[in-house]
Amino acid sequence: MNVLVTGGAGLIGSSLCRRLLERGDSVVCVDDFSLGTPRHVQDLKKEKGFRLEKRDVAKPGWHKGLKGPFELVVHLAANSDISTGRKKPEMDLERTLLTTFETLQAARALRARGFAFASSSAVYGYEPVFPTPESAPRLHPVSVYGAGKLASEAYISAFVENYGLNAWVYRFGNVVGRRLTHGAIYDFVAKLRRDPSKLEVLGDGRQRKTYIDVEDCVSGILHGVAKSPAGKTHAERFQVFNLSTDGATSVREIAEEAARVLTGGKARIQYGESPIGWVGDVPRTSLDVAKLKALGWAPKLDSLSAVRKSVADYAEWSK
Amino acid sequence: MNVLVTGGAGLIGSSLCRRLLERGDSVVCVDDFSLGTPRHVQDLKKEKGFRLEKRDVAKPGWHKGLKGPFELVVHLAANSDISTGRKKPEMDLERTLLTTFETLQAARALRARGFAFASSSAVYGYEPVFPTPESAPRLHPVSVYGAGKLASEAYISAFVENYGLNAWVYRFGNVVGRRLTHGAIYDFVAKLRRDPSKLEVLGDGRQRKTYIDVEDCVSGILHGVAKSPAGKTHAERFQVFNLSTDGATSVREIAEEAARVLTGGKARIQYGESPIGWVGDVPRTSLDVAKLKALGWAPKLDSLSAVRKSVADYAEWSK
Repeated sequence: MNVLVTGGAGLIGSSLCRRLLERGDSVVCVDDFSLGTPRHVQDLKKEKGFRLEKRDVAKPGWHKGLKGPFELVVHLAANSDISTGRKKPEMDLERTLLTTFETLQAARALRARGFAFASSSAVYGYEPVFPTPESAPRLHPVSVYGAGKLASEAYISAFVENYGLNAWVYRFGNVVGRRLTHGAIYDFVAKLRRDPSKLEVLGDGRQRKTYIDVEDCVSGILHGVAKSPAGKTHAERFQVFNLSTDGATSVREIAEEAARVLTGGKARIQYGESPIGWVGDVPRTSLDVAKLKALGWAPKLDSLSAVRKSVADYAEWSK
Repeated sequence: MNVLVTGGAGLIGSSLCRRLLERGDSVVCVDDFSLGTPRHVQDLKKEKGFRLEKRDVAKPGWHKGLKGPFELVVHLAANSDISTGRKKPEMDLERTLLTTFETLQAARALRARGFAFASSSAVYGYEPVFPTPESAPRLHPVSVYGAGKLASEAYISAFVENYGLNAWVYRFGNVVGRRLTHGAIYDFVAKLRRDPSKLEVLGDGRQRKTYIDVEDCVSGILHGVAKSPAGKTHAERFQVFNLSTDGATSVREIAEEAARVLTGGKARIQYGESPIGWVGDVPRTSLDVAKLKALGWAPKLDSLSAVRKSVADYAEWSK
């Protein structure tokens, strides 16, 4: 299968490209290295069937020179660092939404059949039903990032109807693993390396969110595409799945694990007073993943195990 | 009250500006005259408290030189001609979404408190529940225009959380009246003027959609803002209302009315075979408007009466 991956040098993209090559696919990996880095895919460069392209997928016509058709485009590129979106909403609009729009335009031009998209639990905003199903009655995102993800879903839905694409939209929990580019674990490791005596945590640490290991996330993406093929109606061609673990992990658990691994538990952890880490932070996320599980997929690691593995792997990777 | 209206020279904007001036508000009416025309607000220019500004609200910084604060920004500017969005999705993205994003940025800069937005039943796509409530479990738009409206809602929701705006989002049915800029009545009148002997209709004419008279639409916008003031939580500060009549009117009824008024019923009406008028057309729309009605609002005209009045008024206006 010919697969095009945007954001291919990021956390999820770099694992996805590996998995696709292992199963014999040809992969064009596109990244602008704003969050992802060439090091994330360095070992893949020698693989037959792998091609790395430095391109900014927010630019109209970014696909020029690439040759289709692609059986599948997996669009992962985004400003995945949610807290910065507030300071620069115009940057987040460009990185999180316009990347999607221009990748949809590229998918048309490159005669792609399938389009898989990295959406987010952030589309649900403060939805009060836990675990939250895909059919939640409110999609009112509270971060600029979440807005960009819901906006992206909307344009994908319209492109499915108008231009013959088939789409799989995955609303991810917090995805963690070895090649982190942002997030709580990333921040905690950096802070503890700067000063192993203490760890300052944004917010009171009681936020509880659902985490998933990047390898389970990649399995879920490919499982949905394989086991829920597109039908004829719009509903059968635009499919939405939550993708995470059943459980949730608190920021306190993450902070303690980071302090344990990096400093043998010696760092003093200092919590803030706010129930959220920043404006637009959603203090509790829990996703109902029954829809994808009904297709035979299940994560190998639960939420806390995924966090622990990521702390250990990223601490080693980032040495 | 100081009110800023984007798309103020369009069908809805020109009626809204009139109503606001009548109740003593000061109005800054912004339009780029791409769909709206200066003639629509010509008679308002002599009114005290009215200011007309030709500006393109998709351009960053379009508000430069305007002075806030505004109590209310009503954002109506969009590419409201749905069927053209398919041919030029990048145009629709700019006119329907980027106008919203840049008006949100303007609202921040102009220290606006309230933000009322013209969304659309198009956000519901092929939602099969009729009448469709605001809490419909799927928001999967099938037109590029509908995508731009849902994307706009998403960014408004995030701006409410991040930058202190209060928002009222209205998902309109088909709004009709005297100063039409597009749509079935507009097209039928133009066709019958070119050739009074026949009227070719896109699609089989069996599409049934909900219509509302522009004056009732304007009443609904102002009623919601007045009677459902913002509270403290995000849910109380980002409020979504369907805004239309209870009933629906078929394209056949509209075609027959146009042929009757324009040609005394002599035009032969020729229908197509498709159940939709164009790709992305939703053949049936019906909105549950109980939420706004519970606040004491009700339309004066039903769907068919609104259509009939618009055919008569627009035929006269466009002579």
